[in-house]
Amino acid sequence: MSTAPCPLCHDDAGLLVHRRPLYRVVRVTDTLAHPAFYRVIVNAHVAEFSALSAAERVAVMEAVVLVEQALLRELSPTKVNLASLGNVVPHLHWHVIARFADDAQFPAPIWAPAVREREPARLAALQAQLPALDAALARAFDHLP
Amino acid sequence: MSTAPCPLCHDDAGLLVHRRPLYRVVRVTDTLAHPAFYRVIVNAHVAEFSALSAAERVAVMEAVVLVEQALLRELSPTKVNLASLGNVVPHLHWHVIARFADDAQFPAPIWAPAVREREPARLAALQAQLPALDAALARAFDHLP
Repeated sequence: MSTAPCPLCHDDAGLLVHRRPLYRVVRVTDTLAHPAFYRVIVNAHVAEFSALSAAERVAVMEAVVLVEQALLRELSPTKVNLASLGNVVPHLHWHVIARFADDAQFPAPIWAPAVREREPARLAALQAQLPALDAALARAFDHLP
Repeated sequence: MSTAPCPLCHDDAGLLVHRRPLYRVVRVTDTLAHPAFYRVIVNAHVAEFSALSAAERVAVMEAVVLVEQALLRELSPTKVNLASLGNVVPHLHWHVIARFADDAQFPAPIWAPAVREREPARLAALQAQLPALDAALARAFDHLP
């Protein structure tokens, strides 16, 4: 793994919502069962959260919170899940995922085996809300110091 | 789920390492494949990270970082995984998990199906390091403002 080029250094790695020097926010488009899924990706190639300075950690978590709040406000999910794993791609990134009681794995984490298939119409309706959510998020980040 | 008493309100929910008014830190002892697993549990019964004030979020994440740093320093894991999920128990808690290339799911998250069984001697050696890690962590928290 360590000799392969890092995919999070290579490109945005998602639909770009906002970018600033420390991090970017992208919507994840390759996890079809979970469309309301964003990542806050630190631009520097560091592996662990504790590799950031205290001030950087605060800024990154406030970005995570801004995404979480937008998901809660706009989509009323059952729960928001936050995770920084990076076992496959050891480049610091936070997953921010809206979870719904009818999604493929709920209440298990999205990495557990699927236990149901979500109603396609429900998934399509959720998908249709995301461009407006992206735009609302971009505006919220524009107002974040 | 909402009518059952909350297990994270009911007791420590792990081996207590440190407690302060905002949160407690426990070692998780019921996930046998992953012994180097701690939780930072917010004492108040709130579900989402964004339900905390900005100052509380900083304090909680600095606790998460203190645990992460101790895991990195004492155990040299392949990666540390951080997650706040709470789908089953919607009471805010952070998982801080040392991951190793030979553990049951690596590089997948610990919630994915196991792909191997870890060498029992390796698991026992790791387990043997944990009381000293608990003590080092307790001292580190005693020095945290």
